Amino acid sequence: MTDPIRPTDNQAHALARRLMTQARFAALGTVDTKGQPLVTRVAFGLCPEGQPISLISSLSQHSQVLRSNPACSLLVGEPGDKGDPLTHPRLSLVGAAKFVDNQTRAHQVLAAHYLQSHPKAKLYIGFTDFFFVRFTPDAGYLNAGFGKAFHLKAADLVATANPDQPG
Amino acid sequence: MTDPIRPTDNQAHALARRLMTQARFAALGTVDTKGQPLVTRVAFGLCPEGQPISLISSLSQHSQVLRSNPACSLLVGEPGDKGDPLTHPRLSLVGAAKFVDNQTRAHQVLAAHYLQSHPKAKLYIGFTDFFFVRFTPDAGYLNAGFGKAFHLKAADLVATANPDQPG
Repeated sequence: MTDPIRPTDNQAHALARRLMTQARFAALGTVDTKGQPLVTRVAFGLCPEGQPISLISSLSQHSQVLRSNPACSLLVGEPGDKGDPLTHPRLSLVGAAKFVDNQTRAHQVLAAHYLQSHPKAKLYIGFTDFFFVRFTPDAGYLNAGFGKAFHLKAADLVATANPDQPG
Repeated sequence: MTDPIRPTDNQAHALARRLMTQARFAALGTVDTKGQPLVTRVAFGLCPEGQPISLISSLSQHSQVLRSNPACSLLVGEPGDKGDPLTHPRLSLVGAAKFVDNQTRAHQVLAAHYLQSHPKAKLYIGFTDFFFVRFTPDAGYLNAGFGKAFHLKAADLVATANPDQPG
């Protein structure tokens, strides 16, 4: 069996960053204490340093699972309506989540930044049950369409660079 | 804290079935042997008995993870382009996956059924590395928008009924 993974090039880096920069939501994968995975939809944004963040409610199931086990995965990159959905590029991030206390200065900084890309979140960002979570990806798996798979390292997954510039 | 889960009614059942019937792809959550979750995009369809199925390549990462640990989750229900993505309904299924050998009559039956809803899969359904996987949901978590969460049982998650009919 030949290795289906291609060597990661500048184009793959740029595509991964573009998927992260453009995403407004993601599929979050968590694992409960019994080992059962759960995939839910969460908001997706980037902190000023280019790491993935989400704004989640402490009432949500994924929030409760993440509190007991921070290991998680995020899928970004939406197929849209046309063509085979599996030909559209997407990025799977794997790593861990860390909660940001919503009574802190760190929360305020994230909130001001996040509202620029998620203006509708203004409706609930001030609710006491809403928290930011910051994700630290250890690795990324980019699928740019059938037969176009790339592995990315943590350092490749900080999306502060202009996503339209390669490398 | 009040319970954020509403009593499951016929409308919730019908919405869950509609999301399953209309989905052409899903976010699949798996867990590797180290306990790290991974979310990837997979095709999504229903078998003639109304259970979720997917057509996946044995070269894919999720396929290799699922072979070692069948516990998984599927998220269906896409937000589209307008409004806050978190106001759009989605369904998280949790359960386990079982591979269907692609040299069997069971594969042929699934293939004929699947191609009706996924005609573009004709291009690769005959490849030797492609297999069907059948999912058995133990439970479902329906989120019909902020503050509208419902829990569903395995029996509620068989989507053979007309999705436009309640109950």
